[in-house]
Amino acid sequence: MKLYRLQGDNRVDGMALCEEDTPRPKRGQVLVRMRAVSLNYRDLMIAVGRYRLGAEQIKNIVPVSDGAGEVAEIGEDVDRFKVGDRVVNAFVPGLITGQSRPDSLPRLRGAPHDGVLSEYALFEQDDLVTLPPGLSFEDGACMPCAGVTAWNALYCGPKPLLPGQAALVLGTGGVSIFALQLGHAGGAGVIMTSSSDEKLARVQALGAWQGVNYKTHPEWQEEVKRLTAGRGVDVTVENGGPGTLSRSVAATRFGGSVGMIGVLVQGQINPIEVMHQGIILRSILSGSRDMLEDTIRAYDFHKLHPVIDKVFPFAEATAAYHHLEGAAHVGKVVIALD
Amino acid sequence: MKLYRLQGDNRVDGMALCEEDTPRPKRGQVLVRMRAVSLNYRDLMIAVGRYRLGAEQIKNIVPVSDGAGEVAEIGEDVDRFKVGDRVVNAFVPGLITGQSRPDSLPRLRGAPHDGVLSEYALFEQDDLVTLPPGLSFEDGACMPCAGVTAWNALYCGPKPLLPGQAALVLGTGGVSIFALQLGHAGGAGVIMTSSSDEKLARVQALGAWQGVNYKTHPEWQEEVKRLTAGRGVDVTVENGGPGTLSRSVAATRFGGSVGMIGVLVQGQINPIEVMHQGIILRSILSGSRDMLEDTIRAYDFHKLHPVIDKVFPFAEATAAYHHLEGAAHVGKVVIALD
Amino acid sequence: MKLYRLQGDNRVDGMALCEEDTPRPKRGQVLVRMRAVSLNYRDLMIAVGRYRLGAEQIKNIVPVSDGAGEVAEIGEDVDRFKVGDRVVNAFVPGLITGQSRPDSLPRLRGAPHDGVLSEYALFEQDDLVTLPPGLSFEDGACMPCAGVTAWNALYCGPKPLLPGQAALVLGTGGVSIFALQLGHAGGAGVIMTSSSDEKLARVQALGAWQGVNYKTHPEWQEEVKRLTAGRGVDVTVENGGPGTLSRSVAATRFGGSVGMIGVLVQGQINPIEVMHQGIILRSILSGSRDMLEDTIRAYDFHKLHPVIDKVFPFAEATAAYHHLEGAAHVGKVVIALD
Amino acid sequence: MKLYRLQGDNRVDGMALCEEDTPRPKRGQVLVRMRAVSLNYRDLMIAVGRYRLGAEQIKNIVPVSDGAGEVAEIGEDVDRFKVGDRVVNAFVPGLITGQSRPDSLPRLRGAPHDGVLSEYALFEQDDLVTLPPGLSFEDGACMPCAGVTAWNALYCGPKPLLPGQAALVLGTGGVSIFALQLGHAGGAGVIMTSSSDEKLARVQALGAWQGVNYKTHPEWQEEVKRLTAGRGVDVTVENGGPGTLSRSVAATRFGGSVGMIGVLVQGQINPIEVMHQGIILRSILSGSRDMLEDTIRAYDFHKLHPVIDKVFPFAEATAAYHHLEGAAHVGKVVIALD
Repeated sequence: MKLYRLQGDNRVDGMALCEEDTPRPKRGQVLVRMRAVSLNYRDLMIAVGRYRLGAEQIKNIVPVSDGAGEVAEIGEDVDRFKVGDRVVNAFVPGLITGQSRPDSLPRLRGAPHDGVLSEYALFEQDDLVTLPPGLSFEDGACMPCAGVTAWNALYCGPKPLLPGQAALVLGTGGVSIFALQLGHAGGAGVIMTSSSDEKLARVQALGAWQGVNYKTHPEWQEEVKRLTAGRGVDVTVENGGPGTLSRSVAATRFGGSVGMIGVLVQGQINPIEVMHQGIILRSILSGSRDMLEDTIRAYDFHKLHPVIDKVFPFAEATAAYHHLEGAAHVGKVVIALD
Repeated sequence: MKLYRLQGDNRVDGMALCEEDTPRPKRGQVLVRMRAVSLNYRDLMIAVGRYRLGAEQIKNIVPVSDGAGEVAEIGEDVDRFKVGDRVVNAFVPGLITGQSRPDSLPRLRGAPHDGVLSEYALFEQDDLVTLPPGLSFEDGACMPCAGVTAWNALYCGPKPLLPGQAALVLGTGGVSIFALQLGHAGGAGVIMTSSSDEKLARVQALGAWQGVNYKTHPEWQEEVKRLTAGRGVDVTVENGGPGTLSRSVAATRFGGSVGMIGVLVQGQINPIEVMHQGIILRSILSGSRDMLEDTIRAYDFHKLHPVIDKVFPFAEATAAYHHLEGAAHVGKVVIALD
Repeated sequence: MKLYRLQGDNRVDGMALCEEDTPRPKRGQVLVRMRAVSLNYRDLMIAVGRYRLGAEQIKNIVPVSDGAGEVAEIGEDVDRFKVGDRVVNAFVPGLITGQSRPDSLPRLRGAPHDGVLSEYALFEQDDLVTLPPGLSFEDGACMPCAGVTAWNALYCGPKPLLPGQAALVLGTGGVSIFALQLGHAGGAGVIMTSSSDEKLARVQALGAWQGVNYKTHPEWQEEVKRLTAGRGVDVTVENGGPGTLSRSVAATRFGGSVGMIGVLVQGQINPIEVMHQGIILRSILSGSRDMLEDTIRAYDFHKLHPVIDKVFPFAEATAAYHHLEGAAHVGKVVIALD
Repeated sequence: MKLYRLQGDNRVDGMALCEEDTPRPKRGQVLVRMRAVSLNYRDLMIAVGRYRLGAEQIKNIVPVSDGAGEVAEIGEDVDRFKVGDRVVNAFVPGLITGQSRPDSLPRLRGAPHDGVLSEYALFEQDDLVTLPPGLSFEDGACMPCAGVTAWNALYCGPKPLLPGQAALVLGTGGVSIFALQLGHAGGAGVIMTSSSDEKLARVQALGAWQGVNYKTHPEWQEEVKRLTAGRGVDVTVENGGPGTLSRSVAATRFGGSVGMIGVLVQGQINPIEVMHQGIILRSILSGSRDMLEDTIRAYDFHKLHPVIDKVFPFAEATAAYHHLEGAAHVGKVVIALD
């Protein structure tokens, strides 16, 4: 089989296309013929050496955490799947339900464990879910980290987003577009921010209730307050950049919650600002297999599809990384395998 | 002012149209010129002597708990409203947030306290909420008990209904149509039951995902399971009649929740059936002022209106009761005051 | 190795002591030299043919679900344990966290899967937890089903028992004594019921706040109300017999919760009674590995030990079953293996 | 009656002892003969002009938010209390249940509204709770802000502290000693920090599980991790000073929660640190009347009393403020009225 391996040289272009024997599933394992994988910002950080792991831990790793494909072979005692089943892998291995656990990060695919940018990949049977017929492999490959992160941020905290409420989502990357689609599907008014009126027009076509251009409105939190009649949003999905967190808190209603997303939250925050608004700050470290099934069910029921900015062929995987690196995309970057 | 008073004779037709002095608001109180009231099944039970209170406690009570109108006069220290504001009254006096409390039932309007079938009514200022311009007085009058009950059953338990999930709602009365509209607004698939295909066509036009005729399918819980691919619904709003609760439990997924609604739940239930499915049974005793505001916000945001079966003039209030008594209505019965 | 197998003849005395080859752990599995097992009422029901499974499914099953021992051998890819570790098995295989799932019941040990009344038993590594030095194998063997059930009923619902609150626990069997010790450890006032003043004296020595003799007080729910100054208890652990559930509900405060325990809840319940008190009825189907660790931590921290009524040697396993069948025991019945 | 009024000159010694007519309760109000009040750090901040309000809003305010006394007179329609009842006032007016709301801060006593450092004070009847016979007026006066803050931080978040778990509490001031007593009453292991071994000995006598001297251990978060076998505490009550929050987060277990307490949390925090541990940061703005009743019930049930560092007579109120200003106290500073 063909697969990519990182060289631990902190360069996207350094990853190597290799050819190896296809592995066989051991007891409890499922071998999947990968048909599509999607890139997360985390995958890019790993490739360029800006993730929390050292070069030695990254060297020779098969990159990319999320993918979809068909079951090619099952190991002993596998009872959840059979050959030919269409499947998606969960982002956090071993996390059936609930929030990430202390042992979740050391288990992740794409680093420190081998990922899915490979014609075949092995999974424990408990780490796969069924992909329904209405969703393509490309659709499915987008779901594991980004879709579940958005679902978790909106619907799995102590105060889930409810119909008629308002949510604030920063930017137009993968998680953000999932949050838009899932918030809209749940009957909430989703406010999106961007530096581009063109992107704002795009997200409004996708169902955004309001768009705020943070170039035009440098004090964009004030604009969010204005749009919500001074109340602020009920839930904020904070996946912005340096300095956005304080504004996000200010844009959130008294007693509301702010979900902080993975690798992107930067800058300091003043706890007094958080306290004066009675805010709950939640750490969103993607989420569980149950959340993945819930996300897929929501897309399937609403006949939605993840927004895929561009699909690259397997041979051009590094180009996909470079595309993600740029600011131009809206939604997910996907690599398809024949 | 004109108003109705019950005679405690267990007859709808026994209620008397009286003329009395308009009261003045005391400190903290607001006098409202009622413009519309809606009937709940509880109001009917009170009038015909089938509520939990004795005839003596009901005699001379002004009936009906829910209404909407304009602020006519405010008492000392009132700061939440001013004359002319359009308002709706909360069903449970003194319940700002959360679930009903031990002292909630003794405070209710329509019995044991005077209700709103009156040209003017007095409220504590904390028991009123603002009616937004997009909703009529008739719309607002429908919300307090029935709308909040549906909202609470769907969205205020330990496992709120989420987009892509399924809800089961029995019948087509006031609470049921609210549950349909609110579940649909929240992106869930709502399954309705009825004995009439005509009513099922009606609710499907209102957004129901599926309809099940329980005459055609006496084992309708099986049909609900079939429609949900064997999984069962995530949340059930149980406001059926004798014998429905066991079937409702059977139609609910393992680990799901069943909200039992007020005066309608009858018959025994076998706890073993509940346990084998890991069900949570919740008591829904309407809900709080916060829930009323959330319900109104959801209707306002989605430009929805409560389904009003028929509006009666104030002079024909008893006819409104008789209409509710019949089985023909879909949604709410309203009495309008000029 | 020596082990017992049920014959599917609905007789405790029919179980056979067999001798078989000791199995070897496959990938992911751990072989445990069992040192103690404890009996649950469920084990008795299985043996006498009153469990939900037919005789054919029970025939040849190794009985008993809960035990403790030492790791004897580990399979490939096992990283949670090493040979010599002292371990306890979780009651619900595969349930790391949260409440039981649709696939929990078909996975249970003792039926339909082989249990632990055997010198050696195989477990998936995820289904074991560490037994701390302060707890004996006999102590550990008591925890999985009964301890976790009590912990779940008290502390894992939407309204956990808090210090200064009151809990009602019926009877003095295994789950009940765990609920007493865990409720007392959590600073709550635990009210126990029994038909024996001697047993009530015993539980008060163990920390019960109050004891109610239900023979002396046939309307014992009234006595519970009296002891709580008319308020009722905050949480009830309902593991009584026929007809107790209605009284348990009546003894619970408005808005409180009643946890219904497994095989013991019988009789019908009138939902109107539940509703008028705003009660939440929870199904307690034991619980997760996390709950087992929490239970063990609480015992370890408080230097508590499960109350063991009597320990039987492996050779007298059937006598242990008969002892459980009688009404005389307080706490758990244990079978020790050398 | 005699009472104190602030002069808005940012000096403790500037407050004036005045003599005014005793007010009469209006409809819904209760006049209380104050018998004891307690000082919170917030009262000191108000007096010295370091609270969020300007001097003009503070000028002429009766200081101090929390007190206890006897009902002297009741207004029209008061049904919760009668003359002679022993009562404590809730800290947040109008907050019956749940967390603080947007309108909570503008309602507070001691600023911007008149407080209780007065022989008589007026309250809405809904803002008082009963003081049980086992607690003195001094005890009761300590509860409203500090006791409720501790109760809320430990027991009212999405993950309440459970028996056998560990809590971290910073310092030995009013809230901290409440958190110690309430955490200990709930069966948790409470770890306290202080710069004084003498104070640590004192808190261990009060039930602290462990004490950490942060002078001796400047990296005290490491010591907390060590004491919890590397796991970290389940709940942290963060009422430290500049720079403690990052260490508190580091001392908390993966997935645990940190309650940030009112006026004391200072310094910046890096959200990445919070996220990598999956922490929930909660804003604790004291809490509700229900929480006050729960706190009082816990103290009453466990025959506990708040730790009162020193009681000053009414005439020496300013000395009480100066005592609070110093670092020497453990627990609460109280002013008694004859």
